[in-house]
Amino acid sequence: MPKPQNVKGMRDQMSQAMLLRQHIITTLMRIFERHGFEPLTTPVVEYAETLEGKLGDEEKLIYRFEDHGGRKLALRYDQTVPLARVVAQYSGQIALPWRRYAIGPSYRGERPARGRYREFWQADVDIVGSASPLADAEIIAVLTESLKALGFPEFVTLLNHRQIIGGIARVSGLDEEAASGVYRAIDKLDKIGAEGVRAELIASSVSEAAADRILELVLLDGSPHDVLAELEQQLGDDERAVAALNNLRAISAALADIGVPTTRYRVTPRLARGLSYYTGAVFETITSHWPQGSLLGGGRYDDLIGLFSGQAIPTVGLAFGIDRLHDVMEELNIGPRLANPARAFVTIFSPDQTAASLQLARELRDAGINVITALASDQGLGKQFKEADRKGVPFALVLGPDELARGEAVVKDLATGEQRTVPRSEVAAALANTIEA
Amino acid sequence: MPKPQNVKGMRDQMSQAMLLRQHIITTLMRIFERHGFEPLTTPVVEYAETLEGKLGDEEKLIYRFEDHGGRKLALRYDQTVPLARVVAQYSGQIALPWRRYAIGPSYRGERPARGRYREFWQADVDIVGSASPLADAEIIAVLTESLKALGFPEFVTLLNHRQIIGGIARVSGLDEEAASGVYRAIDKLDKIGAEGVRAELIASSVSEAAADRILELVLLDGSPHDVLAELEQQLGDDERAVAALNNLRAISAALADIGVPTTRYRVTPRLARGLSYYTGAVFETITSHWPQGSLLGGGRYDDLIGLFSGQAIPTVGLAFGIDRLHDVMEELNIGPRLANPARAFVTIFSPDQTAASLQLARELRDAGINVITALASDQGLGKQFKEADRKGVPFALVLGPDELARGEAVVKDLATGEQRTVPRSEVAAALANTIEA
Repeated sequence: MPKPQNVKGMRDQMSQAMLLRQHIITTLMRIFERHGFEPLTTPVVEYAETLEGKLGDEEKLIYRFEDHGGRKLALRYDQTVPLARVVAQYSGQIALPWRRYAIGPSYRGERPARGRYREFWQADVDIVGSASPLADAEIIAVLTESLKALGFPEFVTLLNHRQIIGGIARVSGLDEEAASGVYRAIDKLDKIGAEGVRAELIASSVSEAAADRILELVLLDGSPHDVLAELEQQLGDDERAVAALNNLRAISAALADIGVPTTRYRVTPRLARGLSYYTGAVFETITSHWPQGSLLGGGRYDDLIGLFSGQAIPTVGLAFGIDRLHDVMEELNIGPRLANPARAFVTIFSPDQTAASLQLARELRDAGINVITALASDQGLGKQFKEADRKGVPFALVLGPDELARGEAVVKDLATGEQRTVPRSEVAAALANTIEA
Repeated sequence: MPKPQNVKGMRDQMSQAMLLRQHIITTLMRIFERHGFEPLTTPVVEYAETLEGKLGDEEKLIYRFEDHGGRKLALRYDQTVPLARVVAQYSGQIALPWRRYAIGPSYRGERPARGRYREFWQADVDIVGSASPLADAEIIAVLTESLKALGFPEFVTLLNHRQIIGGIARVSGLDEEAASGVYRAIDKLDKIGAEGVRAELIASSVSEAAADRILELVLLDGSPHDVLAELEQQLGDDERAVAALNNLRAISAALADIGVPTTRYRVTPRLARGLSYYTGAVFETITSHWPQGSLLGGGRYDDLIGLFSGQAIPTVGLAFGIDRLHDVMEELNIGPRLANPARAFVTIFSPDQTAASLQLARELRDAGINVITALASDQGLGKQFKEADRKGVPFALVLGPDELARGEAVVKDLATGEQRTVPRSEVAAALANTIEA
């Protein structure tokens, strides 16, 4: 037999990891459905031609193969291109604007590294077919509610618009081509710092004065209201920038209506976001508890979803990286840290007590408590306690002949070793209380 | 752009299908965790050598490919072989007996047909590392509770043991080799009928008298107690059959203890189950409402899980075919038939009512109701009602200036067209009541 090993860069999720992951997924699903997002699942496998020509340099990372009839297939590398396919394929059934979410794995043959996997899970939410700033605001509201529900103590969403960096470059006297160079330089701000960006701009023949003005504007920070007002003053002559500012102001107003306080987001002109497919507002959520990078990001992309149907379909959305959320929550100790779904292990005192013990387990399950039972009725209690403890089950229950006769049961806390005897009819309630406490 | 199409044999799951599927998966997870089964997720992709040599004739159905470093990979075709890999790979972390469940897709390049897909979802539950009949009984209890919780009105589990058909052949005077021929003939009983099986047996040089006796025993039916007693009488001379009967009797006793009534299962000697890896008890659940085939099946397989660790690890388990359950539930009209997760569509009466409408949506969400809001505030109400109806949302809410001034809102039932005005503060409660009614 070959050595048992998982594929490099693709992870097995054992019980404790899965219980946290399920908590994340269930929480996200609840918030998504609260806003009427419809679930969609597409196959992990697509025809290769569906996925080709959309990833640029990363195209080489696609896993490709052939089916048994020689047709070219590939593993999806995101859930956005399949969404575009679905929007075109089922156009008759889908009532736009369409809120859809999708949660599942995607695949890229990346070099595995900390936080980067070849099989990675994403939870996507998109509003397809609406150019309304209400849609952008709703996506940001969903992410805000989601992170709150997951228990993140502190986070803020940086908000920008594609046409603002361009506008800053243009009002600083740069032409269209030089402006896109500014975009690339700003994208490196976190890596090389303001001085690095300044040096890079000057090296690409931007004047010192222009570079200084660009940096001053790009680094504006403060309340959304103040930053928008300041940008309005500075960019008032650039038509596209003014439209972008008006769009951000409308999104900001919608965020207020929808219940996202201004403490939860900032207008941040330096936010570039790598993906070239964004066409409007872009955003990225950060937390000071996770300085290594952003928690998630998204934005408006009005061209990609219409690719297969041959018409622009305005869309705004974001993807939660489930692996990222998982890793951060583990590190910050947020969310459940359960090794086992069961809260109690019902021992079997002796073979002739089997029926009574299974009956007790049944009562507890009917009361909504997850319970595991001993399977080897000829083992001593000590071994059974050890088994329960090894599995990470917090409590063991004992129903010996004495307890049975007196209508009682013993509840043993496996962490402290403490035991107490409670009336049989109150075991479920006692256990539930203990768990809550 | 290529024609937008999903890969043949792999299905897109749109909202209504997904809402039913999620209901199935959530229900199964709840029951599995109620019994302390731990969730496990393994990657969809495995090293090809992990999966090879275990599928017999079906091996050619595996999807194979190479990663970017030329390593041979494959898509998993079930969740059992990955379980065997995990048991060997993490043997130090896993406390046996180990209850684990896994829910996810697997892949086989089958010829697509009604109910047979190339991407198919399964929910597996297995108890690894226990030979106890309590384990077999628990798996049957889990399937019984699961189907009840899903709302199946009627079903029964057929129970048999691998050594019973063999024993029947042996006591009918056949040698070991002829006995395995009997097994193959019985497996066709549903297809070719008793007469067909009889003819096939006789054609393979079984005497008429032996064929008659075999059929008589194999077709025994009745209460578990009666069938076991009758088989005991007939097979008392065959040691392996006696051991099998004792095992079924122990499972039957455990089923009583665990709360599965004898109306929910039958001992059925004719149940063969195709898979050759079963070594002990086998079972299959049928419902007369779905005469096309079994709902699910499973059994004890003591050799496969130990393959990678080089030692037998007694295991019993089953797989729910999620696609099968889904198709049957759709046909029998069991489970939710929701087109959209949202229960109400909050219209926007006019642009200046946007904030008030979004505020109402927020109140409803806080009350636990899934709500969708209009995104185009400049559309008439008629258009918005139509949009809500097309999306399958049952109610629309209207908050015009009059309602707002009077502290009221209009609740419109989109199926009947009926409208009523309720105090604003009671909208959430009124909507919840209406939904319940």
